[in-house]
Amino acid sequence: MKKIIIFGASGTIGRHVTRELEREKHTVVKVGRKSGDFTANLEEPATLDALYAKVGKFDAVVSTAGEVAFAPLANLTGADWARSFRSKLMGQIELVTRAVPFVSDGGSFTLISGITGDAPILGGVAATTVNRALEGFVRAAACELPRGIRINIISPGLLEDSAAKYEGYFPGFVPVSGALVAQTYKRSIFGIETGQIYRV
Amino acid sequence: MKKIIIFGASGTIGRHVTRELEREKHTVVKVGRKSGDFTANLEEPATLDALYAKVGKFDAVVSTAGEVAFAPLANLTGADWARSFRSKLMGQIELVTRAVPFVSDGGSFTLISGITGDAPILGGVAATTVNRALEGFVRAAACELPRGIRINIISPGLLEDSAAKYEGYFPGFVPVSGALVAQTYKRSIFGIETGQIYRV
Repeated sequence: MKKIIIFGASGTIGRHVTRELEREKHTVVKVGRKSGDFTANLEEPATLDALYAKVGKFDAVVSTAGEVAFAPLANLTGADWARSFRSKLMGQIELVTRAVPFVSDGGSFTLISGITGDAPILGGVAATTVNRALEGFVRAAACELPRGIRINIISPGLLEDSAAKYEGYFPGFVPVSGALVAQTYKRSIFGIETGQIYRV
Repeated sequence: MKKIIIFGASGTIGRHVTRELEREKHTVVKVGRKSGDFTANLEEPATLDALYAKVGKFDAVVSTAGEVAFAPLANLTGADWARSFRSKLMGQIELVTRAVPFVSDGGSFTLISGITGDAPILGGVAATTVNRALEGFVRAAACELPRGIRINIISPGLLEDSAAKYEGYFPGFVPVSGALVAQTYKRSIFGIETGQIYRV
């Protein structure tokens, strides 16, 4: 059994992944900004250091967290861009780099991007930018991580759970089930590949 | 003949592009941090506003500029990442969004990424991240720009001019000529495509 830290455990995808990992009797350390076994804020790297020091050794870190601004290109402010970079992009880079000393040999990281990285949608230019950036980070970081530590990224499509809310933004996108997304996280966590972008 | 603003005009690629555009009798407005017809700093968006106000109407904006930090993943600091995002990534996003009101109908933007976006090299994780981000930005922004304005991005390989200096970092990469890179900028500036990544 593995000890796995999950960021965004109370979110839509986080709940699916947590349920699946707990069903298999792994030790799941649930992290959120305001709730969970521990709290941490991706935008405040010191809270990540504090979290890892408290949790100690672990086998995997899973992220289902991070925010980006949605607005038409003409309306996106410098602050919108800065927040998008600070949260979903740099937040996930920090949660990797600061965890490296604590992850066991052969452990893994699994980050999250999203289908807007491949398919631009109206108002999603910051999301496309950040998701592609994360995919680049994972491809390159996979080549440099020590001790057999792996890193992959999940790019989920429009979730069934959110389809009704967002379908106007995703015309013709076929929703995917949270259960399938959770299975794909397991491919990353328990598989042997590294540097992969798993498109669900 | 077109009026074309070029950022990074005195750099290696900038000189090739400028020479080619001037040979064809276009009006080339050369911009650099410290030299050129005008100076502007990608990291200081207010200098971009001042530049565009002074130049007035123009047909195309070309970027060969922007810096990223090079260091092994384990040594990259938060400041390294922040500078990489601020310069090559956000700098090029700002030079686009702030120029939109001044670009003529059917005008164009041509940005720069780099081969590390496709092929990670040791110490290049910030470059891979930023280059992919820019390619995402271009794909999405192309869908939202008004008045037939186009946007593409050039991803140059290792330049012949720089090959001796950097070849240790690029084992087996076949260098490309600056002249070919300049031709590819012309494809973007004078062609009809948008949202394209031109790999040279």
